[in-house]
Amino acid sequence: MKNEAINAAISYLDQHKDRFQAELFDLLKIPSISAQKDHATDMRRAAQWVLDRCKAAGLRAEIVETEGWPAVLAEGPLHPGRPTLLVYGHYDVQPEGDLSLWHTGPFVPVIQEGKIVCRGAADDKGQMFCAILAAEAWLKTARDIPVNVKFCIEGEEEVGSPNLAKLIKSHKEKLACDYVVIHDTAQFGEGIPAVTAATKGLVYKEIIIRGPKKDLHSGTFGGSVANPANVLAKLIASFHDAEGRVNIPGFYDSVQEMSDDEVKMMNSLPFDESAFLKDLGSPKGWGEQGYSILHRRWARPTLDVNGIYGGYMKEGSSTIIPSMAGAKVSMRLVPDQSAEEIERLFEETVRARVPDTVTLEIKTHASCDPYLADLRSAGMKAARQAVALGFGKEPVLIREGGSLPILPMLRQVLGADSLMLGYCMPNCNAHSPNEFFHLRDFEAGMRTSAALFGLIV
Amino acid sequence: MKNEAINAAISYLDQHKDRFQAELFDLLKIPSISAQKDHATDMRRAAQWVLDRCKAAGLRAEIVETEGWPAVLAEGPLHPGRPTLLVYGHYDVQPEGDLSLWHTGPFVPVIQEGKIVCRGAADDKGQMFCAILAAEAWLKTARDIPVNVKFCIEGEEEVGSPNLAKLIKSHKEKLACDYVVIHDTAQFGEGIPAVTAATKGLVYKEIIIRGPKKDLHSGTFGGSVANPANVLAKLIASFHDAEGRVNIPGFYDSVQEMSDDEVKMMNSLPFDESAFLKDLGSPKGWGEQGYSILHRRWARPTLDVNGIYGGYMKEGSSTIIPSMAGAKVSMRLVPDQSAEEIERLFEETVRARVPDTVTLEIKTHASCDPYLADLRSAGMKAARQAVALGFGKEPVLIREGGSLPILPMLRQVLGADSLMLGYCMPNCNAHSPNEFFHLRDFEAGMRTSAALFGLIV
Repeated sequence: MKNEAINAAISYLDQHKDRFQAELFDLLKIPSISAQKDHATDMRRAAQWVLDRCKAAGLRAEIVETEGWPAVLAEGPLHPGRPTLLVYGHYDVQPEGDLSLWHTGPFVPVIQEGKIVCRGAADDKGQMFCAILAAEAWLKTARDIPVNVKFCIEGEEEVGSPNLAKLIKSHKEKLACDYVVIHDTAQFGEGIPAVTAATKGLVYKEIIIRGPKKDLHSGTFGGSVANPANVLAKLIASFHDAEGRVNIPGFYDSVQEMSDDEVKMMNSLPFDESAFLKDLGSPKGWGEQGYSILHRRWARPTLDVNGIYGGYMKEGSSTIIPSMAGAKVSMRLVPDQSAEEIERLFEETVRARVPDTVTLEIKTHASCDPYLADLRSAGMKAARQAVALGFGKEPVLIREGGSLPILPMLRQVLGADSLMLGYCMPNCNAHSPNEFFHLRDFEAGMRTSAALFGLIV
Repeated sequence: MKNEAINAAISYLDQHKDRFQAELFDLLKIPSISAQKDHATDMRRAAQWVLDRCKAAGLRAEIVETEGWPAVLAEGPLHPGRPTLLVYGHYDVQPEGDLSLWHTGPFVPVIQEGKIVCRGAADDKGQMFCAILAAEAWLKTARDIPVNVKFCIEGEEEVGSPNLAKLIKSHKEKLACDYVVIHDTAQFGEGIPAVTAATKGLVYKEIIIRGPKKDLHSGTFGGSVANPANVLAKLIASFHDAEGRVNIPGFYDSVQEMSDDEVKMMNSLPFDESAFLKDLGSPKGWGEQGYSILHRRWARPTLDVNGIYGGYMKEGSSTIIPSMAGAKVSMRLVPDQSAEEIERLFEETVRARVPDTVTLEIKTHASCDPYLADLRSAGMKAARQAVALGFGKEPVLIREGGSLPILPMLRQVLGADSLMLGYCMPNCNAHSPNEFFHLRDFEAGMRTSAALFGLIV
């Protein structure tokens, strides 16, 4: 009976897939770039499109204003006692970037070699649309959805979701749920669908070292005072030991090793380090000794300089001792590191290592905890089954090196664990030119969402 | 008889000093900025002004074209057997820089608290004019100059004298001399006139470290590849040891310690390290252990980062592993270090220290040898006597941390030692806003030049 109902919903999706593709194209044509104020009309149009489409699917839906761009909240029929899913997605997109690198217009969706190519195809319009279509499929075939499904489709993800926490908090009852479903991750690779178990945390600092009050002549004053750029370099050099480990006392104290099962699954995946490095154009791999590249990307904390600057940075030469130099330094954290604790350790270490020949300023740009889903929850079990049904292949369990600050926030505010279901390819060019979403994965994604709504108990 | 003649020349200078000041103002009003092509007319006007003024002084003079801005060559009566001095100077000036920092117009000469304030007042128009006026004083009072005096006043010093070596080589016979006289240094301080014995050499390199072919997401790819900015920082950190010495094998092998006499004289000078550091705005001094700040500035080689760059350098944050990072690194050399040898040692060391996880490029921006004058020459003796006469006080012997690439070049091409006579203050704001030249030093400078022409035998 249950499987029959799921199959009916999936059949509906298959029958109407051409219409759904055409509808997605309509949404993709709207350049809803949240970072650019002159796209205000487009942002409104996109929010309205989502609102209308949710209603057409049979959902109750409303637009909720924020201090920035509005969000769309929607929900299916709610039955007390049933599990509740909150699908999080966003209708805003990244700017198109360098137009000369696009092979087609960034907001002119086309099908090329089986791929939908357009800004937003994967991130996140195409993926979040799968869940709306799944709700429609259930409502059209069963006049109900076996779970309570809610939607929060925001318009500010690509600018850091500045108003999301406030929105969630002020609609805490309305958005109450057992699981958040989020489609901001990806499959592992071609033919290897995945469920993502974890994202990394992030602590992002800027270190500014100041010496003399103005740039000095390096001849006349060389040998007088500490050079802020040299001091900064020495500090940065101290951040790693000879084994590639982060050399900040206490940094690894809370690091949780991956379970043997996860390591085993990871090691069974096809991952060719040399092909990977060749693709990056890097002459050689580098990182913490004793771990594979994939292991380090998934589950080992890292520290990187994201930017460094100081003194004369243009063409040619200028013989100065710079008055200041700075570096943007970020750390990616893994469970159970806490961003707050790492911030404290980092600042303590930096303050202890910077000599009194200069002055130090530390700025904070970001701080968010890592996230690890409950791998044994009913939701996680259903998610894996749903992917198997939707993609026709058992998914692998993977981790993500990037950070999703909303996950710890949603867990904290709503008390709900997140299910990360990524339908696109990992190299889908999200945030880059020629973003794409395989048509086959769009269809598999709809099926997966429909299955998920039927499988959670 | 000789002293009488010198006194007559000096009297002439004193009698006409108001006219000379007015003439200098005329020259200072011409914004002869060699770095800016739109000042071509001004450059021509300044060269013509120098030409005319040399002729008015009674010198033979001509304009010599180069591939860049022209030079003025001039000479007094030449008598075989007499010592020959070649006065080197320049009529071009630095750009005015930030206008908002000037208290008066940069090209509107004024007298403020006894100082001539204007771009070029000290560097080099005011100082080189002293020598032209000294020649006039001799020619008007004695109808001759006791030495053969030649002038080479170029127009490209502030852009690195790109055509000077060619000019000197092609006029080698015409410019043949026993000593070069150069006014591009300064007194030691208020009331402490000086003769400069040495300048430092300079090796200026740019190190570029490249990793992945494009910037990478620091979350997705952190732990995969070496970060060029981190590699660069580690390399730079390796350039100094814990004692502040330059940590490049062989770097100190050819360093000649200052003579006991020079050290004694240096230590007898009034130099207040804490006042000096306070003026620089630096919290504390730093440098090679075992030497005073003055000693390090004068006679110890140094290494400084002049600029460092890579990755995201603007406001806020961007989570990338930069594809490249670079640093401009220069070393100041002392006698008897050779720029060629230090270049070799530096490049060898860098190549050995950069790991194979990245690729390396090294660019050369400058390479010039240090210069040490012959402290016992007749010219040096005369120079010190001349300063004593002109300033009314025995000069001290000092060294200069800056580099003057033309000195080794002139020694090589003309076989002549240089006499460095600086008439301005060390803090005269050359290259900065509110450049100044004390009127009293302008007058003492003329007298010194006149005395020098009478004292060399």
